[in-house]
Amino acid sequence: MKIQNYRQVAGIEVSPGAVRRVVAGPAEGAPTFVMRVFEIEPGSATPHHSHPWEHEIFVVSGRGTLVSGDTKNPLNEGDAVMVLPDEPHSIANTSDGLLTVICVVPLVDGKMPGTPRKY
Amino acid sequence: MKIQNYRQVAGIEVSPGAVRRVVAGPAEGAPTFVMRVFEIEPGSATPHHSHPWEHEIFVVSGRGTLVSGDTKNPLNEGDAVMVLPDEPHSIANTSDGLLTVICVVPLVDGKMPGTPRKY
Repeated sequence: MKIQNYRQVAGIEVSPGAVRRVVAGPAEGAPTFVMRVFEIEPGSATPHHSHPWEHEIFVVSGRGTLVSGDTKNPLNEGDAVMVLPDEPHSIANTSDGLLTVICVVPLVDGKMPGTPRKY
Repeated sequence: MKIQNYRQVAGIEVSPGAVRRVVAGPAEGAPTFVMRVFEIEPGSATPHHSHPWEHEIFVVSGRGTLVSGDTKNPLNEGDAVMVLPDEPHSIANTSDGLLTVICVVPLVDGKMPGTPRKY
């Protein structure tokens, strides 16, 4: 069992102004799936992409937009999102505050999934 | 792709004062794992139990205690917890405000996992 605050976990910038932290994954002994926390600055977005695995997302705080191709839907605190395999998606922070979301992905062959297809 | 606010999802009481809502699961087409949101009232706790599958937990808001047998650790907003298979665990709200956590579990044979062992 391991407890760690996400703010103490090293992050990497997945696009300008969007930082990803792996808070429960292979390093913590995760057998099946990986929990990540994304912090997205106002005006920033995660890369628009698809991949053959799913996402389960939860908006911890802030507001933004879920983009899927030409479709845009509002995202608000407390929203849960099921992104099915191969659905294009990105999350944009269209507000003036920080957007913080949880995003869970499966392990593929026991590892973090590989490089997704970008658009 | 489906977006829904967790407050609009029907919940069930897993113990007095502790409500679980499945926000991304089989009904949403989840292939591998299930995201649930728990709201725990002050003085309430989830059942103390173990099971052969893991939990990945994130504290969305509030404060409480993570119990594992005789061990108690504080839980605060932004904490992520990796509970490995077969580790006894429960979450108690020892604060005077609502405790809201995400808890993700794997699907077992494509279904929500069965009844855990209670202590």
